[in-house]
Amino acid sequence: MSAVNILKFGISSPGDTSPLAELKRAGYDPSQILAVIGKTEGNGCVNDFSRTLAAVAWEPLIPKDAITIFSGGTEGVLSPHVTFVVREAGGANTGLVAAVTRTRAFKPHEIGTRTQAAGVADEVGRVLDRPGFGDAKLVLVKCPLLTSAKIDAIKVQGRVPLTTDTYESMALSRYACAVGIEAALTYIKDKDDRHSDSVLDSLDNKDSPIWSDYASCSSGAELEDCHILVLGTSPVPGKIRAISSTMRDAIDATPILTALETIRQEGGEVLQVFAKAEADPSGAIRGRRHTMSTDSDIHGTRHARAAVGGLIAGLTGDTQIYVSGGAEGQGPPGGGSLCVVYRVP
Amino acid sequence: MSAVNILKFGISSPGDTSPLAELKRAGYDPSQILAVIGKTEGNGCVNDFSRTLAAVAWEPLIPKDAITIFSGGTEGVLSPHVTFVVREAGGANTGLVAAVTRTRAFKPHEIGTRTQAAGVADEVGRVLDRPGFGDAKLVLVKCPLLTSAKIDAIKVQGRVPLTTDTYESMALSRYACAVGIEAALTYIKDKDDRHSDSVLDSLDNKDSPIWSDYASCSSGAELEDCHILVLGTSPVPGKIRAISSTMRDAIDATPILTALETIRQEGGEVLQVFAKAEADPSGAIRGRRHTMSTDSDIHGTRHARAAVGGLIAGLTGDTQIYVSGGAEGQGPPGGGSLCVVYRVP
Amino acid sequence: MSAVNILKFGISSPGDTSPLAELKRAGYDPSQILAVIGKTEGNGCVNDFSRTLAAVAWEPLIPKDAITIFSGGTEGVLSPHVTFVVREAGGANTGLVAAVTRTRAFKPHEIGTRTQAAGVADEVGRVLDRPGFGDAKLVLVKCPLLTSAKIDAIKVQGRVPLTTDTYESMALSRYACAVGIEAALTYIKDKDDRHSDSVLDSLDNKDSPIWSDYASCSSGAELEDCHILVLGTSPVPGKIRAISSTMRDAIDATPILTALETIRQEGGEVLQVFAKAEADPSGAIRGRRHTMSTDSDIHGTRHARAAVGGLIAGLTGDTQIYVSGGAEGQGPPGGGSLCVVYRVP
Amino acid sequence: MSAVNILKFGISSPGDTSPLAELKRAGYDPSQILAVIGKTEGNGCVNDFSRTLAAVAWEPLIPKDAITIFSGGTEGVLSPHVTFVVREAGGANTGLVAAVTRTRAFKPHEIGTRTQAAGVADEVGRVLDRPGFGDAKLVLVKCPLLTSAKIDAIKVQGRVPLTTDTYESMALSRYACAVGIEAALTYIKDKDDRHSDSVLDSLDNKDSPIWSDYASCSSGAELEDCHILVLGTSPVPGKIRAISSTMRDAIDATPILTALETIRQEGGEVLQVFAKAEADPSGAIRGRRHTMSTDSDIHGTRHARAAVGGLIAGLTGDTQIYVSGGAEGQGPPGGGSLCVVYRVP
Repeated sequence: MSAVNILKFGISSPGDTSPLAELKRAGYDPSQILAVIGKTEGNGCVNDFSRTLAAVAWEPLIPKDAITIFSGGTEGVLSPHVTFVVREAGGANTGLVAAVTRTRAFKPHEIGTRTQAAGVADEVGRVLDRPGFGDAKLVLVKCPLLTSAKIDAIKVQGRVPLTTDTYESMALSRYACAVGIEAALTYIKDKDDRHSDSVLDSLDNKDSPIWSDYASCSSGAELEDCHILVLGTSPVPGKIRAISSTMRDAIDATPILTALETIRQEGGEVLQVFAKAEADPSGAIRGRRHTMSTDSDIHGTRHARAAVGGLIAGLTGDTQIYVSGGAEGQGPPGGGSLCVVYRVP
Repeated sequence: MSAVNILKFGISSPGDTSPLAELKRAGYDPSQILAVIGKTEGNGCVNDFSRTLAAVAWEPLIPKDAITIFSGGTEGVLSPHVTFVVREAGGANTGLVAAVTRTRAFKPHEIGTRTQAAGVADEVGRVLDRPGFGDAKLVLVKCPLLTSAKIDAIKVQGRVPLTTDTYESMALSRYACAVGIEAALTYIKDKDDRHSDSVLDSLDNKDSPIWSDYASCSSGAELEDCHILVLGTSPVPGKIRAISSTMRDAIDATPILTALETIRQEGGEVLQVFAKAEADPSGAIRGRRHTMSTDSDIHGTRHARAAVGGLIAGLTGDTQIYVSGGAEGQGPPGGGSLCVVYRVP
Repeated sequence: MSAVNILKFGISSPGDTSPLAELKRAGYDPSQILAVIGKTEGNGCVNDFSRTLAAVAWEPLIPKDAITIFSGGTEGVLSPHVTFVVREAGGANTGLVAAVTRTRAFKPHEIGTRTQAAGVADEVGRVLDRPGFGDAKLVLVKCPLLTSAKIDAIKVQGRVPLTTDTYESMALSRYACAVGIEAALTYIKDKDDRHSDSVLDSLDNKDSPIWSDYASCSSGAELEDCHILVLGTSPVPGKIRAISSTMRDAIDATPILTALETIRQEGGEVLQVFAKAEADPSGAIRGRRHTMSTDSDIHGTRHARAAVGGLIAGLTGDTQIYVSGGAEGQGPPGGGSLCVVYRVP
Repeated sequence: MSAVNILKFGISSPGDTSPLAELKRAGYDPSQILAVIGKTEGNGCVNDFSRTLAAVAWEPLIPKDAITIFSGGTEGVLSPHVTFVVREAGGANTGLVAAVTRTRAFKPHEIGTRTQAAGVADEVGRVLDRPGFGDAKLVLVKCPLLTSAKIDAIKVQGRVPLTTDTYESMALSRYACAVGIEAALTYIKDKDDRHSDSVLDSLDNKDSPIWSDYASCSSGAELEDCHILVLGTSPVPGKIRAISSTMRDAIDATPILTALETIRQEGGEVLQVFAKAEADPSGAIRGRRHTMSTDSDIHGTRHARAAVGGLIAGLTGDTQIYVSGGAEGQGPPGGGSLCVVYRVP
């Protein structure tokens, strides 16, 4: 558990690590890095090697127990960048605390299952249980997916893969993480294992989907475990604050406008926005048909990032924002979790 | 020149003409249709046959001198729909007037040239010169493009095509129309041919691009002439009004917010928003890199529509809006023209 | 059952019906058309409106009981064209016979199910049972798919859709048809309902996929029933012949080379090639990884058409061939059915 | 100038360097590597970071003066792999010789110009002039492209970029290299500078395109200089041989069949095939329309690789082949250079 600051910098390509120099100029040492969270310019889907390139470039430069979370896809106006979560020197209270952790590597047949959800729940629960955490504001996870090779490996074992569609495996993995996050938050509330177990059970019950407004999960081929960042408030408020909210659909400007108004009233400035976006699974938004799920040229996650990115960038005037596609369990169907981190004077 | 009303309805597919029945239920006869303007769900690029399908379906159902303008691409949250521009029965003043016209068919080697621009200028000028037009608010044009077959036809004639890139030909055609529109508006202002000619001359002068905030042009393979709709205010104000403005870049929310505030103050409701969007040709928005022009999987026009569509839909709460991609000459570089039509009680 | 000829002509766009004039010049009347089979230049996936445009253009021009089968996707070297199956005037024996039929329209929840398979089996069985059919050489089917709207309609009824992925629904629909075709062919062999029923049962048994080397199925949003064409030899051989075979994987040149050698020896010329292609579901071809199923920018059916189209066009020297993507049950996994129709002097 | 061997191995992802271990098992030391030539699974276009990832992974593992050439795009049946060009230990003659070199880094405004062509010509000429080279069989080049940032940098300097289309810049860069290669080969023939200069001059003369059947050029964002590999025969024949030829269009199977027949007669086995492919710029192949240049969802280079890859893989039975898209100046329009390297017993 550390008091942290948030800084972000543009990148000229996925492998660009020049922000490290900018971080140093801002007075931070690489050893203070807890997490590097990036938006890179691949398709954000299965064969997005921009994420891998970024991970390969950054991992040697950060502490061994720090994590990377690279989310592909800067559709529309979104601008490639990295966000650093850095420990404040001397442990000075900033108001914002964070912790990072990793699950074990998951075997191909575990991806998208209760095993993955439980693994994430355990790690998130462990973090939230630590003293020094006020309220959880955002749980950001990077999780694995199924490639053709992994699907084949599952079949070779005589098992039936959850899906044979590599793109769909990304959604299943995200959903498992989101359920795990919700289970952990449920557990923290009342410390009753039965309640959090019942959340985990819901993974296999398609009729009653659940979600967490604090979850933001992104899958990729560049890892086999889950990288987890938990952001929260410190028990004693400070100058860095966070507003967690939920977009109820992809055109729901209200929570953003409300957050921006709060920040304006407090004289603050936005440090970063973290938002999830998805194509409404009903095929419509407020009763009007969208075409994100029938467009066989562009996957729905790309459409959703572009649209929600356009909205949030327009409202904040900032294109270096973290908008991630595929919000299964990370907000209501068609909507997505939203977290705005800001600093007051 | 006719006093007109604006109505819009969702479509279930590009060939869906059921809005005709809805129009009738709203009290209008098909003979009153001046224009059918649609957003269809193709890629909005060269091989977008959703536009052609819509044109084939609608053209037999509307008056011979009415026009169709189908713009492909409902990326992100945008919802496929058609907008009718209909003559008000009995010539009752609505406050909004419109006229439609067509240029002659352009030969392949004329597309994107001063010839096309001058043809558009002539037609638009003729319309604007008619009595009964107050201020022009929007000139909407559907224009042709170059297919491989047309490029080859140009070469066979021993001519050098303006471009051998079919997608780029869409931009050249849109720009020629926009220059034509600006030339016509310049002429209307002072009736000095030298001024409007100098606007047309600028087509070949890449160093001094010009633009019209009233132009909205969309190209397609489904026609060889230009279909032109001019919307304006009637000399005597009525209950239907229009605000013309300009987004200075793709995240410029201000003109939309300002228009919506004006409409709110007048107690009005939005009938339709017409917006143009493009990938900033500098490769950056407000100094921050975008990736719309280096994404070889999705063309920039698709990215731009998704982003600007997300912003406007979020602010209006409406996904059935006309957002068209490729704003060459239709607003400042990286920005685009904007026209909001609304009705007051 | 009719003795038929096969003619093909290029098209300049999906809505181009000028081949009708060419057919007339070749001495045939439109009333002789049994089927118009086309390759159009859309993406061949869910939102391929080139197929719909072609169907809308052709259906008014052909006899009421004739059928259209438009398969989208002319990736790589493939050239858009239509193939006519026409009744020979005066019933003169050509050696090739054909019949066309349609199933009833299927409800959304029936798509991909045993109900659809049984419906196809019934129709194909009825055709094959008619006197005048020698051997079946090819059963070509156009079948429906699930759009977002249809998936939602299924959910509204309280049913669980077979899939919520519109692209995947195309594969399920093709497979149901292929199983239906195999069931019909099984029935014709021994007239034992138990055997053909057991084929139909296999639809729900993922562990034992079955296939028919005579099946070629293509799905689309442009229809709700199945359009079926059965091609076979007449009991008395004639000058038009057909070789049915199977590509065992997407690089299996042998059956094509073998067929071409037979035709060469008989002094014949190829009239048309009908081939199915797919991304090997194992993720590898002859043990070497392919990337068709992990490419989130281009669907596997598009990749497969391009590759197999390149091979067959290279061997025949002809790019106006019918290569269709998605060969579930239409050849062994990763391979596809192949039928070469040719004429001898 | 070194006697070389050619070995190839599959890769599980662009960053997979496990073939190094396979190379060692085959008896070679990494210090013997002259070049690593790979096909990686990106889109092969501007934002293909699979090439960069591969370069980042391999460059630390190979000698400082060795080069990497990664060509993106394994469409259709093509299988990701790397090909090693390795010095034979002890200088034993293999029959095949190779040399690698690099030009200086080119400034953005030099890309696609005579300056780049001349730089390539100089380097290739220097290599071919060395003693020990019999006939040149293939000149493989990896060259830079223009990103949005580079185009903007050119404009900022007050220069007019050759193109503002990043994808088109890839073609211009490839063509400049091909012209440079042809100039070098012309110079080697008669050592007359005027002749090679006139080849270079042709770069700016669009009316008389020239080409080299020995050129194979691929562009990417991962480098700023040109990486050059020249393969040739040694003056004394050995067991490794190469056949250089040209596909006259994308369905021209003859040169492949002819080469394979020669190899069969010599009892040899194919080590690697190097082929270039492109969408015929006329929009047709043998008079029949293709749609590779009007498909706004998939770039022509991707289509061409898939089709030609399908043909060559079908004929050789091997999917680990080097098929590269965009053959400007690397074979006749619509065709491409072809080089088959094989070993006899």
